[in-house]
Amino acid sequence: MADQTALKKLAGYRAAEFVEDGMVVGIGSGSTIAFVVEALGKRVAEEGLQIKGIPTSDKTRRTAAKLGIPMHNVDDVDHIDLTIDGADQIDENFAAIKGGGAALLWEKIVAVNSRRNIWVVDDTKLAPQLTHYLPVEVIPYGADQLFKRLKYAGYQPTWRLDQNGNPVRTDSANYLIDLHFTKMPDPFKLGRELTSMVGVVEHGLFLNIVDQVVVGRADETIAVFDAHPKPLI
Amino acid sequence: MADQTALKKLAGYRAAEFVEDGMVVGIGSGSTIAFVVEALGKRVAEEGLQIKGIPTSDKTRRTAAKLGIPMHNVDDVDHIDLTIDGADQIDENFAAIKGGGAALLWEKIVAVNSRRNIWVVDDTKLAPQLTHYLPVEVIPYGADQLFKRLKYAGYQPTWRLDQNGNPVRTDSANYLIDLHFTKMPDPFKLGRELTSMVGVVEHGLFLNIVDQVVVGRADETIAVFDAHPKPLI
Repeated sequence: MADQTALKKLAGYRAAEFVEDGMVVGIGSGSTIAFVVEALGKRVAEEGLQIKGIPTSDKTRRTAAKLGIPMHNVDDVDHIDLTIDGADQIDENFAAIKGGGAALLWEKIVAVNSRRNIWVVDDTKLAPQLTHYLPVEVIPYGADQLFKRLKYAGYQPTWRLDQNGNPVRTDSANYLIDLHFTKMPDPFKLGRELTSMVGVVEHGLFLNIVDQVVVGRADETIAVFDAHPKPLI
Repeated sequence: MADQTALKKLAGYRAAEFVEDGMVVGIGSGSTIAFVVEALGKRVAEEGLQIKGIPTSDKTRRTAAKLGIPMHNVDDVDHIDLTIDGADQIDENFAAIKGGGAALLWEKIVAVNSRRNIWVVDDTKLAPQLTHYLPVEVIPYGADQLFKRLKYAGYQPTWRLDQNGNPVRTDSANYLIDLHFTKMPDPFKLGRELTSMVGVVEHGLFLNIVDQVVVGRADETIAVFDAHPKPLI
């Protein structure tokens, strides 16, 4: 049985094959996406693949640029053809939780501006229902008061801290609060509730966003699922 | 007939009378609130009024501190007893637009954490329906794409620029987009729509927030309106 890293590499390289010459490509964040970036860097160097990369984090911008992928900002292009990103967990309805890597805001900004979204995961990320903690990006001013509200609502909030015990700052200089559910409420309703809370910038529920999911399985095969299957005829 | 500045001073000093010893007081932003701050500074100096001030902007924090009002952060206190703020326009249902001074995000954060909210305005700010432009605070990354969406929706967006033609940065380092409506849609529906747009941090519609409105009238009288009248018995 393949180890997790080998699976991520397998799936990441497969996903990079969806990228075609001339595309504007949103490039996600995280350990699986690192292999997508590696594969795209190779294609740029070896095949002369011409793409414009749009990063979902400052880290992705740096690593992709180092591998020779020309990087631009989301506001420099008319649209994004395809975005390839990871996910912390995907349920059977193709709803996902993202943000474990603290990049959920830019990831969502890039995703909603993309004509097509592909997520790449190893099969440990698939679940019938969402059980992963839910990251929420919040404005620092008033964040303690917001934390109290989330606690009072029963959402078991915890602060995202760095190794020194200080609040993690996102690329937009906000804080992250992670919510822990014994049983996840309806994701659409929860998303609307969180969005309406003053001080919440964005949450990690990605709903109605993905078009295809590339899954690296434990038996070293790759499966590609369409989130919006075309009619049979 | 009093000039606008005299009216603002009259109303500002009247509103400052609502502050009582021992209160935690949210202090708004803007030209009318400058007189509230002035009046509170005098009460601190002359009456020995003991309050904790919570600012809605960095500017308010500085000017209030200079006048001897002890200033704290919204996260340093358990709750806020009373917040006094201004408004760009208030309609007959006590819905308001705020944000002309670029402080709407912190103003809303302070407002929702306040047990009681008072707005102070001169009577030119009252209108049967909202017609003022609507400020929206947005994340810089992807702001051009968001601007295009708002334009496509027919909301006639314009960038808030400083005197050098650069985008204004809020105290949370975001941009402001002002929306212009020929006829304002239902504010609750519009607020929900804007809040749900990825990249929107907050909008300037303040709905179901105010408890009392202090109005300086052209004839130099002050009127105080209760937004939530108590039952008669």
